[in-house]
Amino acid sequence: MIGVFDSGFGGLTVLSALVARLPGFDYLYLGDSARAPYGGRSHEAVYQFTREAVEFLFDAGCPLVILACNTASARALRTLQQRHLPARRPDRRILGVVRPAAEALAGLPPEALPGTTAPRATGVAAVLGTAGTIASDSYRLELAKLAPRLRLVQQACPLWVPLVEAGELDGAGTEFFLRKYLDPVLAADPHPERILLACTHYPLLRPAIRRILDQAPGGAAIEILEQGRLVADRLVTWMARHPEMAARLGRGGARGYLTTDDPGWFAARAEALLGIPIAAEAVRLPAVE
Amino acid sequence: MIGVFDSGFGGLTVLSALVARLPGFDYLYLGDSARAPYGGRSHEAVYQFTREAVEFLFDAGCPLVILACNTASARALRTLQQRHLPARRPDRRILGVVRPAAEALAGLPPEALPGTTAPRATGVAAVLGTAGTIASDSYRLELAKLAPRLRLVQQACPLWVPLVEAGELDGAGTEFFLRKYLDPVLAADPHPERILLACTHYPLLRPAIRRILDQAPGGAAIEILEQGRLVADRLVTWMARHPEMAARLGRGGARGYLTTDDPGWFAARAEALLGIPIAAEAVRLPAVE
Repeated sequence: MIGVFDSGFGGLTVLSALVARLPGFDYLYLGDSARAPYGGRSHEAVYQFTREAVEFLFDAGCPLVILACNTASARALRTLQQRHLPARRPDRRILGVVRPAAEALAGLPPEALPGTTAPRATGVAAVLGTAGTIASDSYRLELAKLAPRLRLVQQACPLWVPLVEAGELDGAGTEFFLRKYLDPVLAADPHPERILLACTHYPLLRPAIRRILDQAPGGAAIEILEQGRLVADRLVTWMARHPEMAARLGRGGARGYLTTDDPGWFAARAEALLGIPIAAEAVRLPAVE
Repeated sequence: MIGVFDSGFGGLTVLSALVARLPGFDYLYLGDSARAPYGGRSHEAVYQFTREAVEFLFDAGCPLVILACNTASARALRTLQQRHLPARRPDRRILGVVRPAAEALAGLPPEALPGTTAPRATGVAAVLGTAGTIASDSYRLELAKLAPRLRLVQQACPLWVPLVEAGELDGAGTEFFLRKYLDPVLAADPHPERILLACTHYPLLRPAIRRILDQAPGGAAIEILEQGRLVADRLVTWMARHPEMAARLGRGGARGYLTTDDPGWFAARAEALLGIPIAAEAVRLPAVE
């Protein structure tokens, strides 16, 4: 099984893209809805919660876990990969969503090998994320290596996740807080050519974001990138480079949905987002010392 | 020590009122910032988290714990009092903020004894709270006993806590979401005479709420009630009726501040809210089976 972890239900947008590109594998989704959102929490809290979730998915039979949550990828992935796995789980792997999205912003095609000398993006790109993702500076650090001549505009958008969670996807109040964080991006001279929605909740705001960009001078030319497909495309090539891991993942096409809060509430959100009925199961994540 | 628990830092408004009325006691405040806000979480999650916090404060030396969080008071207090305490902690007490606020809405003076026949409020009152507090129907249940002729308007305000957490205390976007939840209250005919801010975060929005009420026809006459003083006034009389508990509480004037997330972040919020410098300590709440 491939484990897919997110702080809540937003990561289902990533799961959906993974399933579309790699439908044969088994997937187990875990949303930590009882402690969502992670975006404003400290590094320590995000690391601890993510470690608990990853250990849970390992124990549930997932040799590979994808952190579909940007905040978890930005604040916990590196430490998990460099310290936790070698010490406790040398045979497991964890992948995040920051690196694949940064590669796409850098103009690297999905099939580019690590260390490739493919032409790198220049110009301006923007990354919109939670306070935690932006504070981690993860996108800047990745892009400094991948495309040093790309100018990066980063913008934290603290209220966007609560707006999505409250179902406020348009209207004057939502537009106010969309403009509040899009205006500084549009003030960049020259305009960014691409804007990355670096939070799994943000694609639900995409129609309203698109409308605001289209109304701004030159804004219609700005491309909006979501992470789901970028991550899925790169997982395909990662699998090809790691046949030993691919061989360990079940291929029965099974799908499982776990949540740390009310499974009925989660299933309703999941169905609205995925368009298919699902059954969710409630779990508690044991503390990891 | 008197333990004071809230999902985050908002409960400091209650602590502040308690300290003003009963300064001689020792207080230990615990904010579960790593899992805040509780307002949208399921009954099970709120119960579990609150139980962990209460047990932690008991073990830290608090014979009495005040749940300063409305969501915790509404969703967890009754079960804690009726099942958890008798089975595991018969010598401890837990009090919430719903009952004192309901007594105030019902027109009962703080010194009224339980079962008193004092005159009860009539007319219309409104309670504004989180989705969890309103869904629990706790205020309606309390008021049906305390003031059966009082008509109650309840309104969930899902985005108000995130607005406060993001520091968005005024401006057009905030006003939009204040009006969104105040308009149904103002549509009640006749107007409510009193509006209870039944969430510890909401007092920070009070100036903006007052402005909107004042602009509405007849709205200037509406009284806004906050919980801090109501709870403190009633704790004074509760102490007088429970001298055996009062005798067990330390009286050195000590103050302690604990948080489950970053203590620096918490201390900064606490200082802004209390106006005095404090030192906060990070703790982890052990799971309670």
